[in-house]
Amino acid sequence: MTTINLNQIGKDSKEASRLFGVASTQAKNAFLHALARSLGDKKEAILVANSKDLRLAKEKGLSGALLDRLSLQNRLEEIIKDVLHVEELPDPVGEIFETRVLPNGLKLAKHRTPLGVLGVIYEARPNVTVDITSLALKTGNAVILRGGSETLNTNTLLVQIIQQTLEQSDLPPNAVQLIASPDRSYVQEMVKMDRYIDMLIPRGGTALQEYCKMNSTIPVITGGVGICHLYLDEEVDLEAALPVIFNAKVQRPAACNALDTLLVHEKIASKAIPKVIEKLQTAGVEFHLDPTALKLAANNANCIPAKDADWDTEWLSLSLGIKVVSEMKTALHHIAEHSMSHSDGILTSNKEHAKQFVAGVDSACVYVNASTRFTDGGQFGLGAEVAVTTQKLHARGPMGLKELTTYKWVIEGEYHVRS
Amino acid sequence: MTTINLNQIGKDSKEASRLFGVASTQAKNAFLHALARSLGDKKEAILVANSKDLRLAKEKGLSGALLDRLSLQNRLEEIIKDVLHVEELPDPVGEIFETRVLPNGLKLAKHRTPLGVLGVIYEARPNVTVDITSLALKTGNAVILRGGSETLNTNTLLVQIIQQTLEQSDLPPNAVQLIASPDRSYVQEMVKMDRYIDMLIPRGGTALQEYCKMNSTIPVITGGVGICHLYLDEEVDLEAALPVIFNAKVQRPAACNALDTLLVHEKIASKAIPKVIEKLQTAGVEFHLDPTALKLAANNANCIPAKDADWDTEWLSLSLGIKVVSEMKTALHHIAEHSMSHSDGILTSNKEHAKQFVAGVDSACVYVNASTRFTDGGQFGLGAEVAVTTQKLHARGPMGLKELTTYKWVIEGEYHVRS
Repeated sequence: MTTINLNQIGKDSKEASRLFGVASTQAKNAFLHALARSLGDKKEAILVANSKDLRLAKEKGLSGALLDRLSLQNRLEEIIKDVLHVEELPDPVGEIFETRVLPNGLKLAKHRTPLGVLGVIYEARPNVTVDITSLALKTGNAVILRGGSETLNTNTLLVQIIQQTLEQSDLPPNAVQLIASPDRSYVQEMVKMDRYIDMLIPRGGTALQEYCKMNSTIPVITGGVGICHLYLDEEVDLEAALPVIFNAKVQRPAACNALDTLLVHEKIASKAIPKVIEKLQTAGVEFHLDPTALKLAANNANCIPAKDADWDTEWLSLSLGIKVVSEMKTALHHIAEHSMSHSDGILTSNKEHAKQFVAGVDSACVYVNASTRFTDGGQFGLGAEVAVTTQKLHARGPMGLKELTTYKWVIEGEYHVRS
Repeated sequence: MTTINLNQIGKDSKEASRLFGVASTQAKNAFLHALARSLGDKKEAILVANSKDLRLAKEKGLSGALLDRLSLQNRLEEIIKDVLHVEELPDPVGEIFETRVLPNGLKLAKHRTPLGVLGVIYEARPNVTVDITSLALKTGNAVILRGGSETLNTNTLLVQIIQQTLEQSDLPPNAVQLIASPDRSYVQEMVKMDRYIDMLIPRGGTALQEYCKMNSTIPVITGGVGICHLYLDEEVDLEAALPVIFNAKVQRPAACNALDTLLVHEKIASKAIPKVIEKLQTAGVEFHLDPTALKLAANNANCIPAKDADWDTEWLSLSLGIKVVSEMKTALHHIAEHSMSHSDGILTSNKEHAKQFVAGVDSACVYVNASTRFTDGGQFGLGAEVAVTTQKLHARGPMGLKELTTYKWVIEGEYHVRS
């Protein structure tokens, strides 16, 4: 195996980001258009490379879920469509905002600019390669990709196509570079490249996120992990609330915005809990109940006593914790202790209660009478989604194109000096 | 020495931040008002504690500059005035922005909220203790302080006064806590407390900043270090430009926004460089010149040949690098290579050149015809300054109160489900 010089990749990427950062919206859009065409033209070759990855993955005995994520067989058309969609989105770069004239006559403005170089570490999904490329380049950033080893053949070809298209579009091909090696030591090196990489986005499970947070010297965007709560208030239209609970838990249980724990006010518990169980068990949900809730479950076969650790579990499956609380304050306290500050909501018909809940919950997304499943860049109308963050700096919740930018202050004077 | 339980401090701080985060603007302002009074009332005791620190520092043989930073003897009135100034500033917390109604009827809004717990590591200056407390608490944050060991007596008393005033104001005293020990191992522990601290602000030199960047698992706000450039364009009103160069270099050479390198277009070099030297040498400036500039300096005693390392030096003193460039592109390249993305500017009478320069320089503050010395929260009209960052995430350049906040998305529906 040839050694990859990460320092050179970083240097080339920084250099490319300088050129790419001043590219016009027109040039960037023309590139995205050309990229969609190139991907269409090379469809067969891409699927051949992808088949090779799939075959190797099968030989290694990887799981069906992983094989599914790895496969581009039925996804390439959609990926191409997404590139054309990003082409159509407004370009945030160049926006001038917060303009002001100071009393001394100095003119101040913030100019929106690219971040520079993004580092993205991800796992099996090769669609991320194209996805993140189009979002990063639309916003004038360069990107260094480190995809999962299982998808090396697909990624290598995809990045080759991207670089060729950049070159044909008179844009710096080094704006997109792939660390094309399964060797994990490159990840260790990559997360310390603060000299070249401006933002690190780990797209993967908790272990990857945690690794980056603990080891990276680059600012890291963590997220995509949530323990989501709904609090069923004492005053609520229960018939209207049930479909929301159902949707939050059942629609896509493997998503980070799926419901994990239902907190129920004791005044409504005896009426609500049997109905929740009745409705959700039709979808195969298994319930983990606290002692009070368990009494109300009437020996239902899908109900088991909750363990302490359950309240700190992101189920990612058809499981649901249910806990009875004596007042909203207890619910707020439970959420403060167990939420991962992703998505938490209240179901209530009392506006004052809704207000108290919103004020008392410090999560990226706080819901009133809506499913937590809405936490998503597309659903929020951002046009695209880079990630859903659960941290508090730079961006919170769904990140769109704007969150891949920063600003510079531009100060214009008439040969002003500070007195 | 008693052992300090940092985990407990973190826990208490997080708990206090939850209570403090929902405190009304009125309550926070009343606290700041009371704090100003308490500090005034306890003035003598504070100065006694400060004298003790000063005496110990002298015994240890600390430098005059450090002793000056340490002393509150002539600063306390100003510190109290600053607290009252922060009381008057608008409270960014609670602001509702980017409100939207989605096509499906979901109401979206961002609510501005405190960050949570700030960690601040600083060196000698005990004024930072009060300064950062008033800024952090005004924005509903709790704060964990780790001041320099030289100022332990002063800081211990100041934090005692702050905590008493919090208690008297019916606010959680743990909102401000001090790691009252000179033991450096606490810093090592503190920078890993990502479970409790939401933002780490190192206020100190490059070594501290670098330490935090390399070791912290908490998002770090780095900055306060700059290699600042002015580019003297071929088309410029030289007589108007000279005072700007003078101001940028001479007004406060120890500041991070002071000028370090002057880049001069070759067409104007023979006229400009002797004038620059003539004017700045009256203030005692020493010049480090590239070969072309050196020829134009006519054996001036204050001029020496520049070494390569000079272009990467933040002088913090009355030294100035001067380099002749053949075109603006060379100047832009030099800035890209050597700037620390703090403050860089152009002096020109050509609007097109100004525009090219602004587009081509990726620094926190880009100047046209003004002194780099303006990079400052107060000068920019932010009302206060937490720090000047040279990073790109969250905030760039001078940070005011708003930059000590984040937001949460609040989504209100009518029992909406995702389809």
